[in-house]
Amino acid sequence: MSRSLGDIVGALGGELVGNASLQIHRLAPLATARADELSFVAQARYAAQIQTTAAGALIIPAGLRDAAMSRGACIVCDDPYLYFARLTQWWKAQHEPAEAPRVDPSASIHPSALIGDRVSIGPFAVVGPGARIGDGARIGPHSIVGRDAAVGEETLLHARVNIGDRCVVGQRCILHPGVVIGADGFGFAPHQGEWVKIEQLGAVRIGNDVEIGANTCIDRGALDDTVIGNGVKLDNLIQIGHNVRIGDHTAMAGCVGVAGTATIGAHCSVGGGAIVLGHLMLADRVNISAATVVTRSIHQPGLYTGMFPIDDNAAWEKNAASLKQLGRLRERVRALEQRVENNLPKS
Amino acid sequence: MSRSLGDIVGALGGELVGNASLQIHRLAPLATARADELSFVAQARYAAQIQTTAAGALIIPAGLRDAAMSRGACIVCDDPYLYFARLTQWWKAQHEPAEAPRVDPSASIHPSALIGDRVSIGPFAVVGPGARIGDGARIGPHSIVGRDAAVGEETLLHARVNIGDRCVVGQRCILHPGVVIGADGFGFAPHQGEWVKIEQLGAVRIGNDVEIGANTCIDRGALDDTVIGNGVKLDNLIQIGHNVRIGDHTAMAGCVGVAGTATIGAHCSVGGGAIVLGHLMLADRVNISAATVVTRSIHQPGLYTGMFPIDDNAAWEKNAASLKQLGRLRERVRALEQRVENNLPKS
Amino acid sequence: MSRSLGDIVGALGGELVGNASLQIHRLAPLATARADELSFVAQARYAAQIQTTAAGALIIPAGLRDAAMSRGACIVCDDPYLYFARLTQWWKAQHEPAEAPRVDPSASIHPSALIGDRVSIGPFAVVGPGARIGDGARIGPHSIVGRDAAVGEETLLHARVNIGDRCVVGQRCILHPGVVIGADGFGFAPHQGEWVKIEQLGAVRIGNDVEIGANTCIDRGALDDTVIGNGVKLDNLIQIGHNVRIGDHTAMAGCVGVAGTATIGAHCSVGGGAIVLGHLMLADRVNISAATVVTRSIHQPGLYTGMFPIDDNAAWEKNAASLKQLGRLRERVRALEQRVENNLPKS
Repeated sequence: MSRSLGDIVGALGGELVGNASLQIHRLAPLATARADELSFVAQARYAAQIQTTAAGALIIPAGLRDAAMSRGACIVCDDPYLYFARLTQWWKAQHEPAEAPRVDPSASIHPSALIGDRVSIGPFAVVGPGARIGDGARIGPHSIVGRDAAVGEETLLHARVNIGDRCVVGQRCILHPGVVIGADGFGFAPHQGEWVKIEQLGAVRIGNDVEIGANTCIDRGALDDTVIGNGVKLDNLIQIGHNVRIGDHTAMAGCVGVAGTATIGAHCSVGGGAIVLGHLMLADRVNISAATVVTRSIHQPGLYTGMFPIDDNAAWEKNAASLKQLGRLRERVRALEQRVENNLPKS
Repeated sequence: MSRSLGDIVGALGGELVGNASLQIHRLAPLATARADELSFVAQARYAAQIQTTAAGALIIPAGLRDAAMSRGACIVCDDPYLYFARLTQWWKAQHEPAEAPRVDPSASIHPSALIGDRVSIGPFAVVGPGARIGDGARIGPHSIVGRDAAVGEETLLHARVNIGDRCVVGQRCILHPGVVIGADGFGFAPHQGEWVKIEQLGAVRIGNDVEIGANTCIDRGALDDTVIGNGVKLDNLIQIGHNVRIGDHTAMAGCVGVAGTATIGAHCSVGGGAIVLGHLMLADRVNISAATVVTRSIHQPGLYTGMFPIDDNAAWEKNAASLKQLGRLRERVRALEQRVENNLPKS
Repeated sequence: MSRSLGDIVGALGGELVGNASLQIHRLAPLATARADELSFVAQARYAAQIQTTAAGALIIPAGLRDAAMSRGACIVCDDPYLYFARLTQWWKAQHEPAEAPRVDPSASIHPSALIGDRVSIGPFAVVGPGARIGDGARIGPHSIVGRDAAVGEETLLHARVNIGDRCVVGQRCILHPGVVIGADGFGFAPHQGEWVKIEQLGAVRIGNDVEIGANTCIDRGALDDTVIGNGVKLDNLIQIGHNVRIGDHTAMAGCVGVAGTATIGAHCSVGGGAIVLGHLMLADRVNISAATVVTRSIHQPGLYTGMFPIDDNAAWEKNAASLKQLGRLRERVRALEQRVENNLPKS
């Protein structure tokens, strides 16, 4: 199936330059787009590709209008990347029309659960006693909504998502397969060489418009709740410890670990594989590079990094060996400075 | 609901100072506790908060008795953190009375499985041929106990836990959602640029009182078994490779990876995101800091660390660039030392 | 049960030296093997263990024939490790004869799905509309094959594997429990401090003979597909971002993260916990050490490393503190060099 450029601009706005009846069969990356496909140029630095792409039409910023018009159809708009994002949403809706709400007869739904209007519940899903499912929510196959837990309106739990007892998920959230919300936080008191479990009496509260990637885990709080703000985006395989608080619109890439009782501000970003240690505070608008270990609180916005630079192995071995002598090297330099200072004139 | 201080001390001991009929509605952190809530002061270094907390009552060590008594009710005990741990257990039991054992009719239970007394099995669980479920065990919804696998007495498998064929889990264990016990270890023989699978013929044996966090994986052994000792505590999203052995009461934080055939002692700790390479041996009581890569066996107890310190990005870039010249820098210092030695008197 | 040495050599070849009727009860590691067990010596460097092992028989390379014959039965072959791999396959097949194909009546199979011959489908599995399951494929309990997705011939999905809508898995693949194929890639356009979702319109295409470890995730592409080549082996808890391409026969150890649009060549290896940043290109036959962060494209085959060396904590603290002064240290050395150069004769 396809949609015309005219349909697209009709739905999403922007200024159409060129043939409104041109049929678009797919949205495509600039490098591989074909004549019946639509691509976008988000930034001026990709301008050189305008002349080489085979895309049938381009979404471009006003500044590239002249360059783009000379080669064919385009949609001119303020922010092509944002336009493209909205276009993907529209495109998906065109191609995958919403299914009629349906509760699969195999689902196990406790009679005391409150199920809203237009709710879909997939095969083998389990909805526990006292659980509340908001209007228009979709509960995927094998997903579990625990006792007294709540799923907000229009929220989508993909397959095999766990919402633990008493945990709350807001509206319009998307949780991908394998997500575990509300497993016990990792809390034990040491006693004579063994560990005594601290029962985790809190829950997890997740705001609206949150997206959580596959197999990501958010633990319930020990006493208070673990809290995820509105608009937070978490990628796959992330671990969020108990009592963590994440501010609104913060985003984290895959494989991040946030230890217990860390408080992360709003509008932060955390790169893939980074670790935030427990009980730390990160201010708003702090950006952490990939694979960085945050070992202290950060009170100022900015970009913070700590990662060993990659090198060919032989060079790394040499530098890593030297690194283990670094304190000693500083002392040697200090001694040299002293000796030179005592014996040589200032230059 | 609530419990009186008198009830608590009656159940858990300690010396009650103050009003035994004071009703406690919640256990709460010191910083946010209210007048009808109970908190604890584990260590003398939090003593300053005794005067500022609004908690209605406090669990304190004897050394803080005078400071605490002046402000209100308290429970004096030897180890407030341990007392608190046991209190969370008692509190949870009060609030969530044990449900009557129940086998959901939707569960798929092979006729040759041996199911103990007082066993609960949740919706859509699968218990395979020859599996054994011990007395009082609970098998959560969507959990799978494989062929000839065993789950010990009073063990709790939360939702969606996999116990692979022939794997054995001890007594009183807790496995959180998404745990995978007994997937194949990662073993292949190289042959003409391709990988030939080594079937993993071992299993996994897990001791008693082990807790395993959400989405954590423990692979089956290649020939021998992978073995997890008694009282081991593993957080979420941990990977334990084939043939690993972990000693009793060792604890690992989230996102740790332990490669195949590593042997880790008893009473060790491994911080979040750390990696232990394969075929290494860690002695008892070795503590590994977060995000540290263990590249050699460690024979002495102690704390070991290796992580690039975080910095603002500009400073990091400068230092990281210098790091790649570190071997060269040492040579330059050596040359300087030589030249100074040859030309200057000792200072 | 047991098999004789003669049976083994009859099935797998090699030259048998010794008693063909010797019964083997288990394949075992060299260090723990007993008199009725068979072990292997892959490399000459383990030759010393030939005299100490209690194994009843050994698989050895021709070069160790004399050393091995003197102690008992052996199988001489070109590549003992490869022989051993094939032996584990044969051994497993002997001990766990293939079960007759069976579709569990509890499985939810859409009438429009195409199910091949000799297909097994486990309890509570879900096969969506338009899905295709190839001949001889096995779909484990709780596994889900999404709308219009495809699973190739003889492929094994263990329990609780998700194949997202439109995703394609090749022939003879093995996917372990908890694998998520085709969750949405992590794509958002920033807009006024919030994130606008970019719908992920691509899918995932997985080649033949691929093995994917427990709880590993491979995201669907944004526009094009995410592509995994033939013979790729991925361990547990790996994250593969959208639009990643992985070349044939590349292997990755556990806990690796590959960010979006990275292109990794054929015959590469990536060590456990390593991170590959987005949009990078790795040539064929690039090997990345464990816990290394790949921050730039790598065009030459070879081994690349970047990890902070582990040390006892006190030494690490000293060196890490010095590391943060490293740029300054270089400047001090430069100043010393200058001053020495200006004042001292060449030595």
